Amino acid sequence: MIFRQLFDCVSSTYTYLLAERTGGEALLIDPVLENTNAYVRLIDELDLKLVLAVDTHIHADHVTALGALRERIDCATAMGKMTKTECVTVQFGEGEKLCVDNLHLEILYTPGHTDDSYSFLLPDRVFTGDTLLIRGTGRTDFQNGDPAAQYDSLFGKLLKLPAETLVFPAHDYNGMTVSTIAEEKRYNPRLQVADKLAYIDLMNDLKLDDPRLMDIAVPANRTCGLKPAA
Amino acid sequence: MIFRQLFDCVSSTYTYLLAERTGGEALLIDPVLENTNAYVRLIDELDLKLVLAVDTHIHADHVTALGALRERIDCATAMGKMTKTECVTVQFGEGEKLCVDNLHLEILYTPGHTDDSYSFLLPDRVFTGDTLLIRGTGRTDFQNGDPAAQYDSLFGKLLKLPAETLVFPAHDYNGMTVSTIAEEKRYNPRLQVADKLAYIDLMNDLKLDDPRLMDIAVPANRTCGLKPAA
Repeated sequence: MIFRQLFDCVSSTYTYLLAERTGGEALLIDPVLENTNAYVRLIDELDLKLVLAVDTHIHADHVTALGALRERIDCATAMGKMTKTECVTVQFGEGEKLCVDNLHLEILYTPGHTDDSYSFLLPDRVFTGDTLLIRGTGRTDFQNGDPAAQYDSLFGKLLKLPAETLVFPAHDYNGMTVSTIAEEKRYNPRLQVADKLAYIDLMNDLKLDDPRLMDIAVPANRTCGLKPAA
Repeated sequence: MIFRQLFDCVSSTYTYLLAERTGGEALLIDPVLENTNAYVRLIDELDLKLVLAVDTHIHADHVTALGALRERIDCATAMGKMTKTECVTVQFGEGEKLCVDNLHLEILYTPGHTDDSYSFLLPDRVFTGDTLLIRGTGRTDFQNGDPAAQYDSLFGKLLKLPAETLVFPAHDYNGMTVSTIAEEKRYNPRLQVADKLAYIDLMNDLKLDDPRLMDIAVPANRTCGLKPAA
């Protein structure tokens, strides 16, 4: 497998490039608009063909590159069925798969940070979007976020994955690039709660400022980062 | 192998944590002083014992954590034989090895960025310090830097490694986390030169500002980031 983790320093976003083999099909997860040129160049240099670009959810802190990538290289784009958008080629749901050559990523519906949050699973790793972060979890106080739903996504789905599964989140603010399910179970401070009610109380008590770009990014991302037709 | 790439957002430095197995010995490459607590916590969480912390060279853009780590957890510290320092436990040279359990990193002397620059080689990956960066090379205009020596380190040693060898540098400023020798040979703009003289001209023409922390970092790093005894 060809695997590249790419970092956007402005929004601390991780974008993932995956392909089965040189010369084959590629997938981008959570690409950032401002880095479009860099993705296109790298995909070309690695002799890959980008066939699909996806977002784990509608991001509030950066504008997606899905639309720009589709315009540049005619790839398919996808977001989840729960995402209120009409700009993508396809909308995926729980139990379906994202496929590039013989790489098959299983789709898990993991709401909580937003009501349209999904995770993508390979045998050895999971891309957790903003649902499970390294030593953290995505905030649940906007975009139909719901700490009870997030608790179920975490404890009912993600933390039930094999202990050694690598965790690749959509963001990190502390210089960490990867973790494992075992580590997060044991050391993620948000997950050391007695029950669902305790998790809800913890999340409802965070009192975070809105993301700086939220009022720009959320509507822009509903149109794949492209301006709507006039 | 346990492998973690850690990023310092302030100086864009990559620090690498390596170990053969849970419960075993660990090595840190190029740790940054301000992140000492995070390293100690992660090493503890991964159930590792830090036995050795090393710098690829005397850095000019951040202060090393070698001294702080030695004081905190009594690990050995190492820099190269060409580094003018008296603060480390051991000074390594070309052809020697850094060993933690059954991980053996072969030491390559790769001067050019500085006259004390070393790279560390495992069978599938190489830690190139500031000698070979992703789509770049370390500047050669201070600390006894020498573009001719760097050309020899690059073309005579690093680029002769197997094409698929993963390249893990000490810095990246563009969100890239890893590359390969094949990619750098083909796409690194600094390496598309006709001969050594062309490389020397290229490097001598860069006209870069001094690193912001240079006057602080270089002397501090000669004492492993600790203040000299009064």
